[in-house]
Amino acid sequence: MHVDAIVEDLLDRQDEIMRELFNFLRMPSVSTDPAFCQGMRRAQEFLLDWLNRMGLSEVQLLDGGGHPAVFGAWNGASGKPTVLIYGHYDVMPPDPIEAWVTPPFEPTIRDGRIYARGASDVKGSTVIALATVAAFLSLRGSCPVNIKIFLEGEEESGSPSLRNIVLQHKELLQAEAMISADGGRASAHFPTINVGCRGLGELEFSIHTADKDLHSGRYGGTVRNAIHEMARIIASLHDERGAIAIPVLMAGVPPLSEEERLQIAMLPFNEAEFLREVGAQGFGETGYSVREQLTLRPALDVNGIWGGYVGPGSKTIIPNTAHAKLSLRIPPGQDPHQALEAVKAHLRNVCSPLGVRLSIIDPNTGTPAFSLRKTHPLVVAAKKVLLQTAKLEPVLVRLGATVPITTIFHELLGVQTLMFGFNLPDEDVHAPNEFFYVKSLAEGLTSWPRLLEELGKFDLEQFRQMAIEAAPPQSPHGDTSHG
Amino acid sequence: MHVDAIVEDLLDRQDEIMRELFNFLRMPSVSTDPAFCQGMRRAQEFLLDWLNRMGLSEVQLLDGGGHPAVFGAWNGASGKPTVLIYGHYDVMPPDPIEAWVTPPFEPTIRDGRIYARGASDVKGSTVIALATVAAFLSLRGSCPVNIKIFLEGEEESGSPSLRNIVLQHKELLQAEAMISADGGRASAHFPTINVGCRGLGELEFSIHTADKDLHSGRYGGTVRNAIHEMARIIASLHDERGAIAIPVLMAGVPPLSEEERLQIAMLPFNEAEFLREVGAQGFGETGYSVREQLTLRPALDVNGIWGGYVGPGSKTIIPNTAHAKLSLRIPPGQDPHQALEAVKAHLRNVCSPLGVRLSIIDPNTGTPAFSLRKTHPLVVAAKKVLLQTAKLEPVLVRLGATVPITTIFHELLGVQTLMFGFNLPDEDVHAPNEFFYVKSLAEGLTSWPRLLEELGKFDLEQFRQMAIEAAPPQSPHGDTSHG
Repeated sequence: MHVDAIVEDLLDRQDEIMRELFNFLRMPSVSTDPAFCQGMRRAQEFLLDWLNRMGLSEVQLLDGGGHPAVFGAWNGASGKPTVLIYGHYDVMPPDPIEAWVTPPFEPTIRDGRIYARGASDVKGSTVIALATVAAFLSLRGSCPVNIKIFLEGEEESGSPSLRNIVLQHKELLQAEAMISADGGRASAHFPTINVGCRGLGELEFSIHTADKDLHSGRYGGTVRNAIHEMARIIASLHDERGAIAIPVLMAGVPPLSEEERLQIAMLPFNEAEFLREVGAQGFGETGYSVREQLTLRPALDVNGIWGGYVGPGSKTIIPNTAHAKLSLRIPPGQDPHQALEAVKAHLRNVCSPLGVRLSIIDPNTGTPAFSLRKTHPLVVAAKKVLLQTAKLEPVLVRLGATVPITTIFHELLGVQTLMFGFNLPDEDVHAPNEFFYVKSLAEGLTSWPRLLEELGKFDLEQFRQMAIEAAPPQSPHGDTSHG
Repeated sequence: MHVDAIVEDLLDRQDEIMRELFNFLRMPSVSTDPAFCQGMRRAQEFLLDWLNRMGLSEVQLLDGGGHPAVFGAWNGASGKPTVLIYGHYDVMPPDPIEAWVTPPFEPTIRDGRIYARGASDVKGSTVIALATVAAFLSLRGSCPVNIKIFLEGEEESGSPSLRNIVLQHKELLQAEAMISADGGRASAHFPTINVGCRGLGELEFSIHTADKDLHSGRYGGTVRNAIHEMARIIASLHDERGAIAIPVLMAGVPPLSEEERLQIAMLPFNEAEFLREVGAQGFGETGYSVREQLTLRPALDVNGIWGGYVGPGSKTIIPNTAHAKLSLRIPPGQDPHQALEAVKAHLRNVCSPLGVRLSIIDPNTGTPAFSLRKTHPLVVAAKKVLLQTAKLEPVLVRLGATVPITTIFHELLGVQTLMFGFNLPDEDVHAPNEFFYVKSLAEGLTSWPRLLEELGKFDLEQFRQMAIEAAPPQSPHGDTSHG
């Protein structure tokens, strides 16, 4: 059966696929908060059932000590490459819940958009990938390439046990390449191929200035206030223009090459509209375009702060402790360990002369940025598919966000990843009223079967040879961990 | 019956009085949070019942639109001055509740201390005052002076309706002077008389940097982060030493006189121990002793801050909004309105060039500081009582905290207030594990009857004359409101 017929069948069955997506979206699979463990279990069972029904083998949960990944394989394409398909079934917390127009776990269509937590990130694109494989197997009885589906449960938690899972199941996961449903499109108007993303490091820290909260009448004016000190610490992280003010951190950021700047300039991008859409102003490091700032420069953001009395009314205390969570987006070529150490050293350097007690909670070691060369067969195949479906030459772009799996799978299994998600940049991911465009479902269901078909035109040896020639770009992290 | 016998009776019945105090402490009368309205009602009923039982007349709730005050009078001392006795039945919120060793509304004695929210501030001292009046009436059948008991329900909320209540009941509340159970002792070792307190202004403000929270991968490095901007704003309030860095505010603070500095120096005070006890370091404006900083200089404290994601785990957002509550302690001679306007102007001046949207919630106009002259009959009587009970010349001191009623009653009724609470400075008021020393109960029950007896030795005209001669100190607030 021709791939066009597969696509046609998928488009005919959009309502049915949408119902599956809605079922999936109703499951509150928040991985960052133990209160949602029931939602995580329901999502796992839903996926295990679907993979079994579509006829995959070795369907199972892969446990690495945290939330397990869901796995299933189809190994019937002898002499063809094996493609890992990545997605994740966990979602961000829905907070602030009162800001949602409709409840985050009751998917609702309004104005051609599916509103629900996880609709964009990344249940929508995951369902496109799964429906594609199911359609090949049910209509043709086979896939163009060997398939290994790997659906993570901890992507929104920084993937703490992903390394464990991959290391424990290295044989099971062996593949020639990976296609990720995570990592979406840069534009609704121009076809783009994601060839990289920024890395990510996170940490939480607390400061203490006294043994307890103090009465502001009895102590006010004579002791340090933890919120004042926290404010000074946070204010010290950036200069007035918003550029990161940690010289050791910035010394580890490679300068932009001319080729990188040219590639970025190829994507039509309206900076003013990008900011106006979210009611924000232009800000940040000078000397870079917005897309350069977003994809090739680091970003250090305090994601949350709390301290003192935050209930109704007032409470005239001098808080003795304050807390903050922060995250660092890491550009290609920067070592995440070195970058996070620079942040921690900065925090210590600021606190120490003040006599402020600092404690740092450092949940993981960070994920470096990822880059995919344009001569890789994944890119070659994706270009061909997008030129055919969109009738325009696709532009190679990088993501400002982080898909840590790209680096982990490259490091541990030697596979490169093509990000082929169908979400769009304005879909309020990680925020209230996240949505996924209804029409993206059809666009994804048109392109995914063609991409698998295109990859099936390579035989195994040819694919391997091309992948080796598109040697992975140097990564300080990869260098050290491979010795 | 001699006052010594009244005192002896009170000391004999300490267990019974303690039981009444415990009943009172079990009522969660938090005025700042509507969730506690039931606790507020229980406390009102408890007090109304007690005032009725002890034989007061005109027992009633005085309503000014918020939480009502509890009132009762005894008018049998013809030709003697009338003394208002002030206390408050509301308490601070118990947060953070998990920091309490025993529950905040289950009073518990440990190591000679009564632990409970409100034990120190100010149910303990209020019960001493009420038990004193009850003992006079039951044993002697009369009080040495006319008594008007006024127990406020909004002291911890900044007394929003107190002016209304006093204005609506000016006749009922008419008196020659006031004794407050609020405003405690400065030292457990030396007798002190409170002759003043700092004023208080409060406000809450929020900033907005975008229409919604943004994904830190998709926007990080190109937009303002509300927490970063809030940090800059808070950091701008003080210099590195902790001195307030708002010149217009500081210009309204009168310089210290030599007499004020000498009076403060008379109180033995161990600065190092004061700070060591709470695990804090010396900090703040240079050139002033700790007690000068605490009583005659302003203090600006952020009491609470919140913004972004503060739940378990992480959420890589760029928060679009951040919030803070702040309070300002106002020294004698400074106009609270001018001081709060200076803070608000500073916030606007900092936010405006940044393009950060600022909104200020300004719950009240602030309370000026209060001062009582040493020739006032209240001070003369208190000195005599304390010299007799403590065998040491009492030291005149000022409070760093705020007792807004002192100013309100002076302005509206022309009465001066003696603060005669028996709480001590280390009792963790407004913080977890607030307590009241068990032995303070006996000390209060020894001194309060003697103070009323001493005031009864003045006849009405003599008392009025002395009060007029001890002319109230100039207050910019009083000046303007009296034209």
